[in-house]
Amino acid sequence: MRWFGGPAMARANALAGRWMAEAGMAVRVDAAGNLVGHMPGSDPVAGTLLLGSHLDTVRDAGAFDGPLGVLAAIECVERLRGRELSLPFAVDVIGFSDEEGLRFGTAYLGSRAVAGTLDAATLETSDAHGVTVREALAAFGDGAEPASRRGEDLLGYVELHIEQGPVLEQRGAAVGVVTAIAGATRAEVRFTGRAGHAGTVPMDLRADAACALAELVLAVEAAARAQPGLVATVGRLAVAPGAPNVIPGSAEASLDVRHAQDRVREAAVAALRERAEEIGARRGVALGWEERLSTPAVAMDARLGELLAAAVADRGQPDVRLPSGAGHDAVALSELTPAAMLFVRCAGGVSHQPDESVDAADVAVALDVLDGFLRRLAERVSGGR
Amino acid sequence: MRWFGGPAMARANALAGRWMAEAGMAVRVDAAGNLVGHMPGSDPVAGTLLLGSHLDTVRDAGAFDGPLGVLAAIECVERLRGRELSLPFAVDVIGFSDEEGLRFGTAYLGSRAVAGTLDAATLETSDAHGVTVREALAAFGDGAEPASRRGEDLLGYVELHIEQGPVLEQRGAAVGVVTAIAGATRAEVRFTGRAGHAGTVPMDLRADAACALAELVLAVEAAARAQPGLVATVGRLAVAPGAPNVIPGSAEASLDVRHAQDRVREAAVAALRERAEEIGARRGVALGWEERLSTPAVAMDARLGELLAAAVADRGQPDVRLPSGAGHDAVALSELTPAAMLFVRCAGGVSHQPDESVDAADVAVALDVLDGFLRRLAERVSGGR
Repeated sequence: MRWFGGPAMARANALAGRWMAEAGMAVRVDAAGNLVGHMPGSDPVAGTLLLGSHLDTVRDAGAFDGPLGVLAAIECVERLRGRELSLPFAVDVIGFSDEEGLRFGTAYLGSRAVAGTLDAATLETSDAHGVTVREALAAFGDGAEPASRRGEDLLGYVELHIEQGPVLEQRGAAVGVVTAIAGATRAEVRFTGRAGHAGTVPMDLRADAACALAELVLAVEAAARAQPGLVATVGRLAVAPGAPNVIPGSAEASLDVRHAQDRVREAAVAALRERAEEIGARRGVALGWEERLSTPAVAMDARLGELLAAAVADRGQPDVRLPSGAGHDAVALSELTPAAMLFVRCAGGVSHQPDESVDAADVAVALDVLDGFLRRLAERVSGGR
Repeated sequence: MRWFGGPAMARANALAGRWMAEAGMAVRVDAAGNLVGHMPGSDPVAGTLLLGSHLDTVRDAGAFDGPLGVLAAIECVERLRGRELSLPFAVDVIGFSDEEGLRFGTAYLGSRAVAGTLDAATLETSDAHGVTVREALAAFGDGAEPASRRGEDLLGYVELHIEQGPVLEQRGAAVGVVTAIAGATRAEVRFTGRAGHAGTVPMDLRADAACALAELVLAVEAAARAQPGLVATVGRLAVAPGAPNVIPGSAEASLDVRHAQDRVREAAVAALRERAEEIGARRGVALGWEERLSTPAVAMDARLGELLAAAVADRGQPDVRLPSGAGHDAVALSELTPAAMLFVRCAGGVSHQPDESVDAADVAVALDVLDGFLRRLAERVSGGR
C-alpha cells in the first residue's frame, strides 16, 4: 500500500516522475508531496489545465484506482509531443499524494493542499505514531514549492478514474462522463429493547432490538429502490448481548445514504428517521439516531463535461452520464477551479481489492477521449481570443 | 459464580448441607458432587421421592435460579418435622452440582449422573484447563457414594424453580405447573451475496447479504407469532466486511426455535428454511443452513402434575399450566423417573442476572403448594396399598 509520505509513495513519485520527464515535462514535488509535471502552452496568458488523480492507495489495493488517471494524463502529453502539437494552454499533470486518507484518516490531503483548503485542524491531525499532518508535509513535501494554486490561473481540472461501480459495465460503455459527486449522510442508529431468554419469553412480550433493526434495514433498501439515483446501505450492524439463546436487547447499525442532489438525500434521510421512530414506537424499542457526517453533493462543471461528452461522441461511443457515488480529488479541486471527471469501466465494479481490473481497450478509448477533449478545449481557448 | 467443583460450590454444599442436617436429614455428597439430604419414610417399601434443583450458577448470576428449589425442599422437610408428621415414602432433597454447564460447556452433569446417563464422551470432555469431567468428578465427588439411582426405587422427581420468563407475572399468578420442557432447534444461517462500494453500486445491481438476513429475521418473528406456544429468536448476527461504506457481502446469524411439541417445532424450522431459500434465490444470495442442535421436548409426568395442580387449587391460586422454554434438571431426571416442575413467578422474567428477583409472598405460596403436594402424594401412596 502507498500511504502518504511512505517509502512506496516515494518510489511511485520517482517512477511516475521519470515517465513525466520522458514525456517532456518539467517535474517537481510540491510542499504537499504532490508530483507535478508541467508542459508549457504556446500562449503564455492562456492559463493552465490540471490533469491528474492520486498515486496513494488503500490497503490491499488494486492497480488502477488513482494511478490510471495520472498515467493516462502523462500518456496524453506524450501523444501531443509525438504529433508535435502544442496546446495554447499549459498542462500540469498532478499525481496527488493523498486521496484515500489511509495514514491520517482524512481524505484529500494532496488535493486540498492544491486547492488551499487544508485547515488548521487537519494540519494538527496525528497518525498512529503521533506524527501530525504538518510534520509529515514538512518531511515529505518540498517546502520550496508551495502546493496551493491560484484559481484565476487555471482553466479547470479534469480527472480520469475507474468507475468503482458496475453501471458502465451494465450499460455496455467503455467510459462515462461524471455529472456530480454524490453527497453522503452517515448516521449511527441504535435500538434499545429488552433482552430476555430465547426460550422463556413469549413472542408477544418481547421488545427485540434485532427485529426492529431488521425492519429498518428493509425500509432503507425499499426507500432507495423507490428513488432513482438514491443508494442507501446498512454496512455494519451488531446486536447485544449476541448469544444464540438471548433475545437481543440492543442493536446498532451504520446508515450510509447518497444522492447527487442534496435535497433528495436529505428528504430520504429524514423519512428514514421518521420510519425508525415509528418502528421503535410500535415495538416498544427506544431509538438513538446520531448523524455523523453530511457532505453536500458536488456538481461537475457543465462546460467541461460537455467537451468530454463531445469527445466521447467523436470516438463513436455511447453518451453515458452518471453520478459518482464515491469521493474523488475532483471534490477538493472543485473549490478551486471548474472540475470534470471521466469514468472508465472496471470489471464487476470491483475496487479497493487486488482483483480490481480494467480492460486495455477501454483505456485506449479513454485516452482517445481525453485527447479529443484537449483538442476541443484548445479550439475553444483559441476561438475565445 | 459457582461452577462445578469450584471453591464456591464447596461452600454452597457445606452451607446447604448444614441446613439439611438442621432439618433432620442425613447428609452426604455423592460421586458426582451432588448434595443429598435423606429423610426416611414411615413405610420402608414406599420408595423415595426426589425433590431438588441445582446449586451451581452461571457467571454474574442471580440468587434464585437453582438454589430456590433446593432451599424450598429443605424448608418443606423442616415443616413436616415441625408438625411431627412423617410421610410414608422417603424424601431425598438433592442439590445438583452442575446444571448450567459453565465449566465444561455441557449441561446437567449432576442430574445426568443421578439418572445414569452420563456417557463416555461427556466424561472425557475437558474444561479450559484441560481437566476432564471424569477427573473433576473424582476430585470433587465422593467416590464411596455412587450418584446413579435405580428408577424402581423412586416415586418421581419434583423441582421447584423460578420461571425465568414473564408469563406468570403477566397472568397474575404466583406459581404455575409445568406441562413440558420445550424442545429446541439451534441452527446457523449464512447468506453469501456480493460486497461492493456503498456509493457506487446501484440498488438494482446489489446482492446485499444483510438485507437477505433482515428479511429472514422478520420471517422468523412472524412465524413464531403466528403459531401459539412457538418462540423463535435470532440472538446473534454479524455481517462482513462490516464497514459503513461497504455493502455486506455475507451475513450470518443464529436461529433458536422452541416448542413443547416436537412436530410443531420441526415444521416451523422446515418452513423457515424454505423461506430462507426463497429469500436467497430471489435476491441472488447463497444460503448456508447448518443445524447445530435438536433436542426433543420432554413432557412432564401428568399424574404428578395433577397433584401439583390440586395443591395449587387447595391454596386458592389460579390454575396456570405452562411449558418451560428453558432446560432444567428435570429433563435429565425424566429419563430415570416421572418428573414434574412447579414454577415460581419472577420479576420481569429476568434471570441469569444479578437483579433476578422473586417475591417472598410468592415463595410462601410455592412452599404451601409443595407441602400440599407431599400430603396429597402421601394419601395416594397410602391409599394405593
